Amino acid sequence: MSERRYTVGVDFGTESGRAVLVDCADGRELATTVYPYANGVIDERLPEPHAHVELEPDWALQDPEDYLRTLEHTVPAVLAEARVDPSDVIGIGIDFTSCTMLPATADGTPLCLLDDLRAEPHAWVKLWKHHAAQPEADRINAVAAERGESWLPRYGGKISSEWFFAKTLQILDEAPGVYARADRILEAADWIVWQLTGVETRNNCTAGYKAMWSKRDGFPTDDYFAALDPRLEHVVDERLSRTIAPIGTRAGVLTERASALTGLRAGTSVAVANVDAHVSAPAATVTQPGTMVVIMGTSNCHIVLGDRLAFVEGMCGAVEDGVVPGLFGYEAGQSGVGDIFAWFADHAVPPGYHEEARRRGIDVHAVLEQHAAGLRPGESGLLALDWWNGNRSVLVDADLSGLLVGLTLATRPPEIYRALIEATAFGTRVIVEAFESAGVAVDGIVACGGLPQHNELLMQIYADVTGRDFAVAASSQTPALGAAMFAAVAAGPELGGHASVVDASRHMAHLAPRVFRPVDTHHAVYSELYREYLRLHDLFGRDDESVMKTLRRIRSAAAAKAARG
Amino acid sequence: MSERRYTVGVDFGTESGRAVLVDCADGRELATTVYPYANGVIDERLPEPHAHVELEPDWALQDPEDYLRTLEHTVPAVLAEARVDPSDVIGIGIDFTSCTMLPATADGTPLCLLDDLRAEPHAWVKLWKHHAAQPEADRINAVAAERGESWLPRYGGKISSEWFFAKTLQILDEAPGVYARADRILEAADWIVWQLTGVETRNNCTAGYKAMWSKRDGFPTDDYFAALDPRLEHVVDERLSRTIAPIGTRAGVLTERASALTGLRAGTSVAVANVDAHVSAPAATVTQPGTMVVIMGTSNCHIVLGDRLAFVEGMCGAVEDGVVPGLFGYEAGQSGVGDIFAWFADHAVPPGYHEEARRRGIDVHAVLEQHAAGLRPGESGLLALDWWNGNRSVLVDADLSGLLVGLTLATRPPEIYRALIEATAFGTRVIVEAFESAGVAVDGIVACGGLPQHNELLMQIYADVTGRDFAVAASSQTPALGAAMFAAVAAGPELGGHASVVDASRHMAHLAPRVFRPVDTHHAVYSELYREYLRLHDLFGRDDESVMKTLRRIRSAAAAKAARG
Repeated sequence: MSERRYTVGVDFGTESGRAVLVDCADGRELATTVYPYANGVIDERLPEPHAHVELEPDWALQDPEDYLRTLEHTVPAVLAEARVDPSDVIGIGIDFTSCTMLPATADGTPLCLLDDLRAEPHAWVKLWKHHAAQPEADRINAVAAERGESWLPRYGGKISSEWFFAKTLQILDEAPGVYARADRILEAADWIVWQLTGVETRNNCTAGYKAMWSKRDGFPTDDYFAALDPRLEHVVDERLSRTIAPIGTRAGVLTERASALTGLRAGTSVAVANVDAHVSAPAATVTQPGTMVVIMGTSNCHIVLGDRLAFVEGMCGAVEDGVVPGLFGYEAGQSGVGDIFAWFADHAVPPGYHEEARRRGIDVHAVLEQHAAGLRPGESGLLALDWWNGNRSVLVDADLSGLLVGLTLATRPPEIYRALIEATAFGTRVIVEAFESAGVAVDGIVACGGLPQHNELLMQIYADVTGRDFAVAASSQTPALGAAMFAAVAAGPELGGHASVVDASRHMAHLAPRVFRPVDTHHAVYSELYREYLRLHDLFGRDDESVMKTLRRIRSAAAAKAARG
Repeated sequence: MSERRYTVGVDFGTESGRAVLVDCADGRELATTVYPYANGVIDERLPEPHAHVELEPDWALQDPEDYLRTLEHTVPAVLAEARVDPSDVIGIGIDFTSCTMLPATADGTPLCLLDDLRAEPHAWVKLWKHHAAQPEADRINAVAAERGESWLPRYGGKISSEWFFAKTLQILDEAPGVYARADRILEAADWIVWQLTGVETRNNCTAGYKAMWSKRDGFPTDDYFAALDPRLEHVVDERLSRTIAPIGTRAGVLTERASALTGLRAGTSVAVANVDAHVSAPAATVTQPGTMVVIMGTSNCHIVLGDRLAFVEGMCGAVEDGVVPGLFGYEAGQSGVGDIFAWFADHAVPPGYHEEARRRGIDVHAVLEQHAAGLRPGESGLLALDWWNGNRSVLVDADLSGLLVGLTLATRPPEIYRALIEATAFGTRVIVEAFESAGVAVDGIVACGGLPQHNELLMQIYADVTGRDFAVAASSQTPALGAAMFAAVAAGPELGGHASVVDASRHMAHLAPRVFRPVDTHHAVYSELYREYLRLHDLFGRDDESVMKTLRRIRSAAAAKAARG
C-alpha cells in the first residue's frame, strides 16, 4: 500500500460509459477509459435475436448488460493504466443519465434478461430521452393540477414525459403484464449500485428531481396515485421504497462478484448513486450558493444552490440536499444547444465550408467559429430564438420552435452560426434572471461539459451576453470526476477520503486558468439585442395563440391527415 | 418580298441583350440571339483603362456601347438564322430595364464616351439596380410629403432610390461638373431609340413609372424641383422634355447608320421605347382589366390594368396609358423571389443535395423541388416572411428582412425551400388582396418570366395559396416578344402590322396549354397559414418599433462603429 489514496468514478452516459481513476488528495486524473455501449441507444428495433420487434417513434431503450460491460471493461483498465494497487482504491462512485429506469425482479434481475420477456420492449431500460410517455405525463400534470398537488410548483408547474412516473405509467398502460412482473421499478443509477453492493438503495437526487420526492413530504400520496390510476395506488410501497439514501453517503461495499468484475477489492466502499449533471457542480468547484454551474453540451443544464426554497419560473426541479447536502439544489435547462449547432452544420452549411474544413484538417464547426469570430455584436442584423428542440426553462414548452429574423441576400452561414450561439446565450440569460428575480443569487458562473473546452467564441459570447465572468472547470470529464469525489466522501476521511462534499470539492475540483470576462461594449450591444430577444420570447412563447403555437397545431393537423392517408 | 411580315423585338436586360424575330400574323418566334454585355454590370471598378477608379457600395453602372453591340450582334443574327429578307421586316421595337438612365450631350453622345469624362463614374449609365441614391430619394420624398405633392399617392406614397430624379439628383449632388455638361438626361431605353432613329423621343411608360409624369398633370412643378434644389428648378425644360410619346406609336424610322448596324432596311419603322415588365403584359395575352400578369424571376413584378385611377397600397405606380393605351396600368412588386431561392441554394444547402444534383445531372433547385413536392401544405410547421431583399409592395420598405419560424432539429432543407416558395406566394396574395380591396379586380392570373417555365411545384403553390387559376404565357421570352408586338403596332396595319396593342396581343400572344388550378384542400390549409403570415407581416412590417426594424437600427449602429474603426 502506498500513501496515496484513490477513488474510481464511473460515468454512465448516453452512448458510452467512462471510468476515471482519481487521486483523492488533489483530484489528479490518473487514467480514463471509455466503453462504447455494444447496443448503444436502442431506438429502432430490439437487439438480435429480437430485431423483428420494431419500436414506435420517440422510443429510446438501453441494454442493462451494457452497464455491466462498462464496469468490466473500464475499471480494470484504469487500474492497469495507472498502475495503482487496488488496495489503494478506497471507493467507487457512479453517476448516470436520468431518468433512465427499468423494471426488475425482487432480486434485481432486469425483466429484459428473462427469456420470456426479452422480446417485450417495456421490459428493457427506458433511457432518459425516451419520449413516448407524453400522454402519461399529460395525465400526471392534469391530475396534479386539478388536485392542487403541493409538489407541482417545485417542478416549474409541469413534469416532463422523461420522468419516472410517466415512464412507469406507460408500462402499466401499454404492458400491464410487464408491470405485474416488475417487483421493483428503479433508476438504472440505483440498479448499478445494487449490482456493486448486492443491496438495493434509492438515491435522493433522482428521487427528488425525477420522482417528485422531497425530504419533507416524501412521495406524492397514495391518493394521488390512485386518482391517476387505481392500479397505481400502492406503487411506492410495492415497487419503489420510502427509504431514500442521501447522496454523499455509502450505499454499501463491493461484493465478491462485483470485485471479480471490476478488479477492485471486495469490501471497497460504494457511494450512493448520483446524476451526471448534479455531480458536475462540486466537480466544477461549486458547493455554495451564488455561483451557477452550466453543463454545456447537446443541451444546457444549469445548477444553482440556495439556502432556502424559492419558486423559480420554469425550473426542472428544486430539491433539498439534491446536489450538496444542506442546500437546495435548483436545476434548470435549455433543451437545445450543441444539437442546434450540429443541426446547422449538418443541414444548413453549403459545401464550401465543408471543403475548407477538409483542406485545413479541422472540424466544420471550427471553420464557422473562425469566420463568426470576425463579426461584431449586432453586425449581422440577425436574431434567433433557440427553440429548435422546444424550451425547457423558463417556458417549459416542448411545442415551441426555432425562429430566425434579419435574413438578407447578403447573410452568410457564419453569421447565422453566430446568431444561434448568441440565442443560446440569451436563453441562459433568461434563466439567470429568473433565478435572480426569485431571490436566488447568481453572481458567478462556471461552465463545464463538452462545449466550453474547445469553443472560445461561444464562451466569450456567453460572458458578453450575461455580463458575468465565465470560469471553466479544469476537468474535461466533470461527471466522472464528480462521481469519484462522491466516492471519496462515501469512503470518508478515516480511509483517506473526505468528510464532506464541500471538502472533497475544495481538494479535488479545480478551475481552468482562463476566465472569460465580459467586454463592456459587447455587453451593451448584447443588452440591446437581449431586449429584442425577450420581446420575441414573450410574443411567441407566452401566448398560446401565437403564430408559433398555431403553426404547430396546423402541423399536427397535417400530420394527422397524412396518417389517415 | 414574301407575304409574311415580321418584326424584331430587342430586350435589353441586366446582363445581356436579346433579339427575337417574330411573325406578325401569329407571334411565332423564328429566331432568337443573345448578346452577353462585354462589360456586364459595372459595380466594383470602371472598365479598363480606368479600372483604378473604384465604385462605392450600391453602385451599378453599364456601358452604353454594350447596347450598340447588342444591336450589332443580335439583329443581323436573327435575320440570318430565320433566313428572312430584311424587306419583310416591318418594324423594330425595344424594351429595357428601367430606370436605367444616362447623361448625354445635345447630340446624344453619352458623357462617358467623352475622353475627359470617361474616368468619371457619374458620366456612365446608372443601371436600374444602382442603389446609391437613397439620400436623394429620401429628400425627394420628404420635400414631396411636406408640400403635399399630389403625385405622391400614385407611387404608394414613396418613390424609390432606383428612380429617375433620385439618380439625377445624385449626379448633381456628387458631380455638379458632370451635371453641367449633361445637355440631356434620359432613360437608356429612349437613348437606344435615339440611336436607331436619329431623333430624341421620351416614352410615357418610363416617364410615368419612373419620373413622376402623368398625362393629366405632366411632371412635378418647377417649384417642387426648386424646393428640392435651386439648381434643379428647370431640370425638365433644360435636360428632359415635356413632349412625351405614347407607347405603341412610332418614334421614327431607322437611319442609314442604324441600318448598317442592324442589317435592317433604312426607313424601317421604330417603335417608341418601352419597359421589360410592361411589354410583358400584352405578350402574356393581357390587355384588359381583371387579369394580373406576374413576371416571375429574381423578383416578381405584377401588372394589372384598370379603367380608372384607384389608390392601391404600396404600388410602384399607376400610370394612365402606361401599359395599354386607354387604361390605367398598375405596377406592384416583390423585391425578392428567385434570388431568395438562389440565396438558399448557394448559402444554406448542405453537400448531400449538391452531390445528388451532380449525380443526376440536374440543378440543385430541381433536387430541392422534387423533395419538397412530397410534403403536404402545413406539414413542415415552417412559415417565412419573404423579405430577404426588403418589401416593395405593399409595405414599400427596403429595411425589412427575412424571417423563418417553426424550425426544429428535424427540419430539412427541402422543407425550408418549400416554405420560402410559399412565403413568396403569400406575398403575391397580399398584393392581389390590396388590389381587390381598392376596387381593382384580379379574377385571373397569368405568369411569365424565367421561373414559371420550369417550376411546376412553385406554380401549383401559387395557385393553391391565392386560390386562383394560374395560366402561363406560352413564350419564354415575353419581353422580347412584347417589344416585337409594339413594333408591329408602331408599323401599323397598312404595313402588315396591327392597329392596336389589343389586336397585336390577340394575334401574337398565346398561353401555354397547362393551367395550374388550386386544389381545394391545399387552399384551405394555405388560408390558415396565410392568416399567420399576415399576423407576422403586420407585426414586423407595420410597426416602426418592431423587433425587425430595431435589429436593423442596431445593425446600422454596429456598421457605423466598424467604419469608425
